[in-house]
Amino acid sequence: MTDADVKKQFVEDLTDQSDDFSRWYNEVVRKAQLADYSPVRGAMVIRPYGYAIWEHMQRLLDGRIKATGHQNAYFPLLIPESLLQKEAEHVEGFAPECAWVTHGGREELEERLAVRPTSEAMVCHMYSRWIESYRDLPVLINQWANVMRWEKVTRLFLRTSEFLWQEGHTAHATHEESLGEVLRMLDVYRDFVETELAIPVYAGPKSESEKFAGAEMTYAIEAVMRDGKALQAGTSHDLGQHFAKVFDITFQDEQGKRQHVWQTSWGLTTRMVGGVIMTHGDDQGLKLPPRVAPHQAVVVPIWRKDGEKAAVLEFTAKVRDALQGRVRLHVDDRDQYSPGWKYNEYELRGVPVRLEIGPRDVAQGSVMSVRRSGRAKEPIPFDRLGERLPALLEEIQQAMFQSALEFRDANTTVVRTVEEVEAHFAEKRGFVALPWTGDAKVEARIKEKTGATLRCIPIDQTPFRDHAPDGSKLALFARAY
Amino acid sequence: MTDADVKKQFVEDLTDQSDDFSRWYNEVVRKAQLADYSPVRGAMVIRPYGYAIWEHMQRLLDGRIKATGHQNAYFPLLIPESLLQKEAEHVEGFAPECAWVTHGGREELEERLAVRPTSEAMVCHMYSRWIESYRDLPVLINQWANVMRWEKVTRLFLRTSEFLWQEGHTAHATHEESLGEVLRMLDVYRDFVETELAIPVYAGPKSESEKFAGAEMTYAIEAVMRDGKALQAGTSHDLGQHFAKVFDITFQDEQGKRQHVWQTSWGLTTRMVGGVIMTHGDDQGLKLPPRVAPHQAVVVPIWRKDGEKAAVLEFTAKVRDALQGRVRLHVDDRDQYSPGWKYNEYELRGVPVRLEIGPRDVAQGSVMSVRRSGRAKEPIPFDRLGERLPALLEEIQQAMFQSALEFRDANTTVVRTVEEVEAHFAEKRGFVALPWTGDAKVEARIKEKTGATLRCIPIDQTPFRDHAPDGSKLALFARAY
Repeated sequence: MTDADVKKQFVEDLTDQSDDFSRWYNEVVRKAQLADYSPVRGAMVIRPYGYAIWEHMQRLLDGRIKATGHQNAYFPLLIPESLLQKEAEHVEGFAPECAWVTHGGREELEERLAVRPTSEAMVCHMYSRWIESYRDLPVLINQWANVMRWEKVTRLFLRTSEFLWQEGHTAHATHEESLGEVLRMLDVYRDFVETELAIPVYAGPKSESEKFAGAEMTYAIEAVMRDGKALQAGTSHDLGQHFAKVFDITFQDEQGKRQHVWQTSWGLTTRMVGGVIMTHGDDQGLKLPPRVAPHQAVVVPIWRKDGEKAAVLEFTAKVRDALQGRVRLHVDDRDQYSPGWKYNEYELRGVPVRLEIGPRDVAQGSVMSVRRSGRAKEPIPFDRLGERLPALLEEIQQAMFQSALEFRDANTTVVRTVEEVEAHFAEKRGFVALPWTGDAKVEARIKEKTGATLRCIPIDQTPFRDHAPDGSKLALFARAY
Repeated sequence: MTDADVKKQFVEDLTDQSDDFSRWYNEVVRKAQLADYSPVRGAMVIRPYGYAIWEHMQRLLDGRIKATGHQNAYFPLLIPESLLQKEAEHVEGFAPECAWVTHGGREELEERLAVRPTSEAMVCHMYSRWIESYRDLPVLINQWANVMRWEKVTRLFLRTSEFLWQEGHTAHATHEESLGEVLRMLDVYRDFVETELAIPVYAGPKSESEKFAGAEMTYAIEAVMRDGKALQAGTSHDLGQHFAKVFDITFQDEQGKRQHVWQTSWGLTTRMVGGVIMTHGDDQGLKLPPRVAPHQAVVVPIWRKDGEKAAVLEFTAKVRDALQGRVRLHVDDRDQYSPGWKYNEYELRGVPVRLEIGPRDVAQGSVMSVRRSGRAKEPIPFDRLGERLPALLEEIQQAMFQSALEFRDANTTVVRTVEEVEAHFAEKRGFVALPWTGDAKVEARIKEKTGATLRCIPIDQTPFRDHAPDGSKLALFARAY
């Protein structure tokens, strides 16, 4: 096959986003080897390239979680049914989605155990034993773990029975303090998702009907994907004293009085790998933000005659050494694939920058950089590589955020009436911002007529200020993943 | 209470190792807040201080796993019973220890699913789909995950139903190559455990009766604990083609011929937190090797009169700034606890170095360092702190390894006959090295009469060279955790 043939084959192989976004998504995930289906319904395998993205997310989010004073711990996978049942709303929300362990070894268990759908019940049981005095507060614990919510439909990364996440669980002496924590972690999520994943989000409380089972209120960050559907990117829950009261988590305050603690929980999951794919990808495949890209740049050495090979590979080795520790570099010097094949492969895999090194580049002592997005070319002299490439990657990161922000803003429509919301969703997608006074009937009507749900009421109402009648706030509605 | 009272209370509270090692272990784990029991039989909660040790282990081992060319991935938690049954020895070994999921949501499942006891079955199923050509080999994948083996007895970190580990799973074109991998990872484990955990180990193959269910042969690293019992610290399995044949994992070789792959798997678990405790701890509590200690040094500021407090805390802040990023430092400036109480607390918690800062230290512009082990004191001038403290921590790390090595060697006895093995274990513990020709009857007799099992046949026979009759090798026997 010639390079042109290969290219054609790749382009033909991948469905266009505009033809069938969902199919494009599945093809990209499979072809880029991010993930695969498993023999268990609803469960996925995260392959090394997809897992490396998650590892970078973990590292960057974990740093923020620790910088805000939290420590990691690990709680058991299996939760006795009786613990799960203590909080009425909680069990109602989660029990229908649980996988149940009924046998241990050869014995039937006296009480069945849920594979954790979330860990509030287990954490609260332990907190009731650990917390005694105001001196023990606040308790600021996070856990990185797998959880399971039984699903009939599998969408790789987006909707799987088992997924990976972090879940924070904190306990405080006052509601003022716990609410501060809820908002602090919401902002940690916003900053993480915007800065590292280049995904702009709206952040704010949800409605009563959309809150977490057992919470006083749920706050979320919400993003829009390239097909116009919203993706919940992270949630931070004000648990009030709901769990503290049923699990009897109390502390002695400074006056010696026994009080219930105030709690929060917050989580962000592997679905954000899906969020990255659907925010940035295009018809050529993935486009990974440099900060979480497993390979930030790929070097493709090019030679035609055998006489050229040695010089090209020697220069390639020099480039590799020069960038060691500065850029996550992947060198693909495999013989059996042509440069054209490799170009397509790494565009599909979303590597932010390609560095081409051919005999002419060697002669000029430079490499040709090609940006994944737009394919802009820029020769970089060898001496400037260690300085220029990191800067270029940062420019790409910023440009990806800007581009996603423009898309988000272009896909946010402000309206004044419920009728306008309905008219909008009859033809379009994206976020619709509507002045909302908290009327659950309005929310229910929109959901019934359009399938759109209330995503959040942005804390930052700046973009909507001119549209809010007498001090009311605008709420965002969208069809969502 | 006076400091002397507090000290007495601490010492009285903690059982001496020589009185009851097992009780000492449980008390240390609970009092130092490393872990706790959970409401699920056999399952533990790893508390922040214990989990921080594991996080340092993960970071240091993960670096070595990646440096040897492996990538991380994630496979599903639940394994269909039919997959587990494919390899006959494997299912026989693990099925009796499985927790079984029989219901998903409100439905009974058609086939029950095992909570993974280990992931060979799932991994092999996926490899049979991913591997086609010699160009796809080797596959070098690792996973950090939770696994479950149903246990009736709980020993925190050492024996719990659920534990955390990493499991490597690799596939190769030849047995020579896969065996090379088995030995490479065994040496990675040896290096990790000796260098980072300061635990000396013997490394070598096990016997037929002690190998992993489904393996061709198992290699292990084995350590001795302070009570003389052995602890298996990591295993590396030569799986041969056992799984490749039943899961039909084949590749087309360079000649176009279809062949089965050769596989390995290898794992190291949270039980090594227990290994650290039982190798280094003493009657005062934990002794953590600096490289994995959550706090490498603790600063205890000391003042008697209020007039002294400001100057002491100001100097403490300077010390904290000077050591930022060089040492994992914990400053305990809490008012409500006395210095004496803190000394005992951080000795219990095994912090390698205590830095005392009192008015006299401030006046002299130095801090008083006290080693956890032996309590040797050394004043360190403020200007030299950034250089001296890291060096001191490294000296402590080396001294801990040396001390553990001397203990190990003093607890390794070379004998010539089975009768001597029996006589030894009638009175003592530790490793017994016996020339062994592979006779399973000898092994079985020793196990029956003494409870000691064959731990490994050290690859490095240097220490035993003079004791091996005509080219035979010595095998190590011990009672083990």
